[in-house]
Amino acid sequence: MEIKTALLNITKTQNSKIDQVDFSNLPFGKTFSDHMMYCDFVDGEWQQPQIVPYGPMQFDPSTKVFHYGQAVFEGMKAFKDEDDQVWLFRPERNFERINKSSKRLAIPEFPKEYFMESLKTLLTLDHEWVKKGQGNSLYIRPFVIATENGVAAAPSTSYRFMIITCPARAYYDVPIRVLFSEKYSRAANGGVGFAKAAGNYGAQFFPTNIAKSKGYEQIIWTDARTHEYLEEAGTMNMFFRINDKIITAPVSDRILNGVTRDSVIQLAKDNNIEVEVAPVEVKRIKEAAKKGELLEIFGTGTAATIAQVLGFEHGGFVHELPKLKNPYGGFFKKKLQDIQYNRAEDIHGWRFGGY
Amino acid sequence: MEIKTALLNITKTQNSKIDQVDFSNLPFGKTFSDHMMYCDFVDGEWQQPQIVPYGPMQFDPSTKVFHYGQAVFEGMKAFKDEDDQVWLFRPERNFERINKSSKRLAIPEFPKEYFMESLKTLLTLDHEWVKKGQGNSLYIRPFVIATENGVAAAPSTSYRFMIITCPARAYYDVPIRVLFSEKYSRAANGGVGFAKAAGNYGAQFFPTNIAKSKGYEQIIWTDARTHEYLEEAGTMNMFFRINDKIITAPVSDRILNGVTRDSVIQLAKDNNIEVEVAPVEVKRIKEAAKKGELLEIFGTGTAATIAQVLGFEHGGFVHELPKLKNPYGGFFKKKLQDIQYNRAEDIHGWRFGGY
Repeated sequence: MEIKTALLNITKTQNSKIDQVDFSNLPFGKTFSDHMMYCDFVDGEWQQPQIVPYGPMQFDPSTKVFHYGQAVFEGMKAFKDEDDQVWLFRPERNFERINKSSKRLAIPEFPKEYFMESLKTLLTLDHEWVKKGQGNSLYIRPFVIATENGVAAAPSTSYRFMIITCPARAYYDVPIRVLFSEKYSRAANGGVGFAKAAGNYGAQFFPTNIAKSKGYEQIIWTDARTHEYLEEAGTMNMFFRINDKIITAPVSDRILNGVTRDSVIQLAKDNNIEVEVAPVEVKRIKEAAKKGELLEIFGTGTAATIAQVLGFEHGGFVHELPKLKNPYGGFFKKKLQDIQYNRAEDIHGWRFGGY
Repeated sequence: MEIKTALLNITKTQNSKIDQVDFSNLPFGKTFSDHMMYCDFVDGEWQQPQIVPYGPMQFDPSTKVFHYGQAVFEGMKAFKDEDDQVWLFRPERNFERINKSSKRLAIPEFPKEYFMESLKTLLTLDHEWVKKGQGNSLYIRPFVIATENGVAAAPSTSYRFMIITCPARAYYDVPIRVLFSEKYSRAANGGVGFAKAAGNYGAQFFPTNIAKSKGYEQIIWTDARTHEYLEEAGTMNMFFRINDKIITAPVSDRILNGVTRDSVIQLAKDNNIEVEVAPVEVKRIKEAAKKGELLEIFGTGTAATIAQVLGFEHGGFVHELPKLKNPYGGFFKKKLQDIQYNRAEDIHGWRFGGY
């Protein structure tokens, strides 16, 4: 497959690793495909993007990203249809969001043509790394890191934008149980919660470990001010089904504007499922649970697509959700995957590519 | 100088860079001394610390610190007295705090003897990098980064603890003007504000750039909930002098427990200066300013020691502080430096080392 582009400089691998990979046994995010993209911002501008064999790079110990967490990322997936064509899902959303994240972290915005052309080139070069079949995908991780050497607490003058990809099977295979946070917080008003800033994630690991020790895989974060409103789960936005209506928190400067979240809201509208986008009071959810009206909780995110929640705990109140025959979560998951794998009509133009 | 220690493995440089350094012209944090320490956490334990020549290291693009900001740091300084002895200032405080930060970021705690022995060894090997004379110091940057390869959003299984050092002159040479934050926030209740987490710093760069464009070098962060209380300046704790009393915010889960802050409170007590540790209402500071009773604002931090504030702005209210002949800020700075440079009696046992 020949690739012609003046935008990128391409060095193909001489030693594909693909034959060493067991695609039936892939822990998430540990195996990377043959190529990656990097692009340096120096002297006030983004240089030519480089497509090179995946591999380690040298960094000075004073590199700013190590000290000041000036870094943002995105998560995307590519899917292969039965005709061996590879598709992205709403990649412009991820492009817009990484630049929004970058802006908040004082990182220069990245050019759109570099982003889109790099994705196309990587998916063409590493076409064989995207496997057909339900649940299989190529997880795509664009990220930007501050690369200036020096420990002064000031924005970096140089950056590296990278895209790495890894073959993936379903992220959350099993349904999860969640803990509603009562003490720890993910984001402040006027902070960086809406951004996919690296530091937002590291900050969640300790409280999540505590939740795990109690038997809960994830925390649903509540607002830092009162802990009375459910916000997001850190890697997923959350939906709550009361009777036949689904409720999700509005995006804000604390809550990430998830692509899957947005798509589920649209799919609900398309299918005459009532959606309420409003602050989700813990009290309301607990009361609905007690009355038997809380039928589902599910999370939405690129890695998980839809993760069905089995039960939750809050303030000593433990609740198991009913096991529905046809949950909305499963319905939305199928709708999304049918579009992603090019098995269904795509009325909103979400599918992109066909590489 | 012979160094014997079974704790550390030492590889000395064959090519000291010291003769290439212009010690009279040192931008902060850009020039590093000959040696560094690194120590890897793998297989559930900290391995033997390695002292090696300062230089770049290889990292996989999927290294967790790049993606999830799982990283913490400390800032310390070493000072040389007139007899060529090198001293640290309350290093146990930094040791305790980096482990407190690590714990919140789900990073394993580091052994004390490794920390102290590494400092001693680095200061002995790089003794010539610590220059005598007021304002000169060796800035010491211990930090820990998550080093596992992989993009799953979960705590790393491996870490690297490092100590790098750089010769420094005074950090804030000139007094500064500050903006009291009205919109942006640094930390949430239940968040990581009390920790020296890497992500706390990158998150401040964008709002600080806005402040700089208005002529203010720093932001004094207010509480995310109401923006009515002054908290800290991101790299400094803040003190406000009203008449003859100094006021500073209590430490909390949002506010860093600064070593210089603690030392200034103690020095104030030693010298019969009244100290009030209480939430600092913006309104109170502005009213005192209007009445002419706000005599000083100064910041305290390892990098700056004491940074005197010339003026502030809040909500369109601009105030210039009076120019005092003998400000408390200068008094505390001299007291601290006299202890740090071994020119004064050290009644609290803050000086450490004598390498």
